[in-house]
Amino acid sequence: MFTPQPIGYARTPHTRSSDIPKGIGAKHDAEGTLEILPGFAEGLADVEGFSHLYVLWEFDRSDGFDLTATPPADGGRPHGVFATRSPRRPNPIGLTVVELLERDGRRLRVRGVDMLDGTPILDLKPYLSSVAESSLRRGWLAEAEARNAPRA
Amino acid sequence: MFTPQPIGYARTPHTRSSDIPKGIGAKHDAEGTLEILPGFAEGLADVEGFSHLYVLWEFDRSDGFDLTATPPADGGRPHGVFATRSPRRPNPIGLTVVELLERDGRRLRVRGVDMLDGTPILDLKPYLSSVAESSLRRGWLAEAEARNAPRA
Repeated sequence: MFTPQPIGYARTPHTRSSDIPKGIGAKHDAEGTLEILPGFAEGLADVEGFSHLYVLWEFDRSDGFDLTATPPADGGRPHGVFATRSPRRPNPIGLTVVELLERDGRRLRVRGVDMLDGTPILDLKPYLSSVAESSLRRGWLAEAEARNAPRA
Repeated sequence: MFTPQPIGYARTPHTRSSDIPKGIGAKHDAEGTLEILPGFAEGLADVEGFSHLYVLWEFDRSDGFDLTATPPADGGRPHGVFATRSPRRPNPIGLTVVELLERDGRRLRVRGVDMLDGTPILDLKPYLSSVAESSLRRGWLAEAEARNAPRA
């Protein structure tokens, strides 16, 4: 397989994992900067035309993996790692959709960062279309939300 | 950085790159199967509760990268690779949203495959929410679509 290389690094307000909002209804509206390395800056041409980007990045402070995860969003109930966003994955790749606020040369100011400060970035891709919310089923997460909803 | 490993392989109807619909309005509704290796099958627990999944995979038949791409969707106009879906990327990772039709043990039957048959799969993640279509800007792709629209 290929050998991963960082194309840049994320600057975010999150210095510890505990700084990152998790669990039911977690909002990721933190702003940050994606600093692309000078050798890859040419690859950003025309990226400013897109309102949203996919960011692929490395869980570089995660070590090893588990096939079963117990997400905080579901109070310790176990789920297969591929049904979760757990960082302890066979390939420790994170995926985040961010809103592109401004491009300043090889620095992209974005909203929606949920990665730690200094996280290596692997790739950026344009976000082109969405699945209609009405056709989404959200498995255990929807069940956990229903279980945690305030009762009337 | 980490060393990538396949967690499985995609079985798709696409044996050559030219089989894959590309360009303006390309529809990816081909069905295929994601065959997860026995050693990772436990990680699929509860994945069947989700209607859509992100599939991260390797462009394993792509060699090297370019910082500028000329997507067929835009008639040879150049764009930075990070503003495109070109396979010739610094880290050759593909990203596809698929609809999960059926799970049969460690085989996931899905709709929307746009990768070649035999493609190594790196990761699966639940698709949890969408960006509202009304708030998306789609850069050069929207311009190319407008340019190619039939005239009245």
